Amino acid sequence: MAEMMKKLAGKFLVIDGPDGAGKTTQINLLINHLAAGGLEVCKVRDPGGTAIGDKIRQILLDRQHEEMSVRCELMLYMASRAQLAHQVIRPALAAGRCVVGDRYISSTVAYQGAGGMDGREIQEAGRIAVGDTLPDLTVILNLPAETGLGRLKGAPDRMEAKAMEFHRRVRELFLQQAAQAPDRFAVVDAAGSVEEVQQRILAAIAKWIG
Amino acid sequence: MAEMMKKLAGKFLVIDGPDGAGKTTQINLLINHLAAGGLEVCKVRDPGGTAIGDKIRQILLDRQHEEMSVRCELMLYMASRAQLAHQVIRPALAAGRCVVGDRYISSTVAYQGAGGMDGREIQEAGRIAVGDTLPDLTVILNLPAETGLGRLKGAPDRMEAKAMEFHRRVRELFLQQAAQAPDRFAVVDAAGSVEEVQQRILAAIAKWIG
Repeated sequence: MAEMMKKLAGKFLVIDGPDGAGKTTQINLLINHLAAGGLEVCKVRDPGGTAIGDKIRQILLDRQHEEMSVRCELMLYMASRAQLAHQVIRPALAAGRCVVGDRYISSTVAYQGAGGMDGREIQEAGRIAVGDTLPDLTVILNLPAETGLGRLKGAPDRMEAKAMEFHRRVRELFLQQAAQAPDRFAVVDAAGSVEEVQQRILAAIAKWIG
Repeated sequence: MAEMMKKLAGKFLVIDGPDGAGKTTQINLLINHLAAGGLEVCKVRDPGGTAIGDKIRQILLDRQHEEMSVRCELMLYMASRAQLAHQVIRPALAAGRCVVGDRYISSTVAYQGAGGMDGREIQEAGRIAVGDTLPDLTVILNLPAETGLGRLKGAPDRMEAKAMEFHRRVRELFLQQAAQAPDRFAVVDAAGSVEEVQQRILAAIAKWIG
């Protein structure tokens, strides 16, 4: 375990997956675990995570912006991410911290891809936005779309209000990314208790780190 | 002249160039001229020009955002432009109107290029943002950087406050774009009276339209 912690210093982990898969809970547990193991951890939220990114996030999540085109949406996510990579992630990695991200480019590939955009264009926009500040490992929390939506509490935001068919496509696109780059992705079954899922995440990280 | 007006229906013209070259004045004169000739004209401002774009513009021009990275800036300009192309430019062109733009992708190639970004990456981001909604003709108002800055009135904004060397590089990058695509660009000398410059712009459009 101490060996695993040492290897995670200066690494960039992302936890991603469909809405309602339990990302927030799992990320907080993971960060507590890594910090308890002696790692300096930096948690980042995407979109947002910087003063500029939070303003961009407000534009993205404003329910009045129904007229927003999928390409505008794509570029706003990438703008927020560019600032996050520049201002937070890159300096933290350079200082040897372990960065744990809540969503990243993989989310945009899934959501804006499900919204009709070409996956290669999204990847290319991501590359222009963040340069080489890409995750070392992205853990996808995998759950049938129906289960995920059932877990949500409170009023859905603009993204969450989209239809079930859209969410099925989102899930497919997450799994597709993982299948295309198994050295940089791990898929974890998000069904079961919070503790079970956390153990699966830790096992996936341990397996990846070797 | 009536023949030229007919050919400009459904065309997308952009007037661009360094700060202080007189773009706003010249665009207003050009629009009056085209409208007087019987054309239905749609004027667009970039960044901005839509409700979403105006919010993005506020983030871009906020002087408190000194920490904004050049890649975040790039993506925000492209986001505003994606929405403008989707919501305003494409429908206006489809309706046979002549769209006259105050700045477009050529500005980002010049300004963010002068800020250190690779020109091909900027062009690629532009292509992803707007698809095929590209100007038929971009008229570059050409003026030595020193003259342009001298013309400015009032307090400079965040972009205008950048140094003289930066503005020289901006001018070079405008001229370089025109040299690389002479069928889609015209360079007009912006020195002289307002009327002289307007006549040169009209002559450049007439020459281009054939």
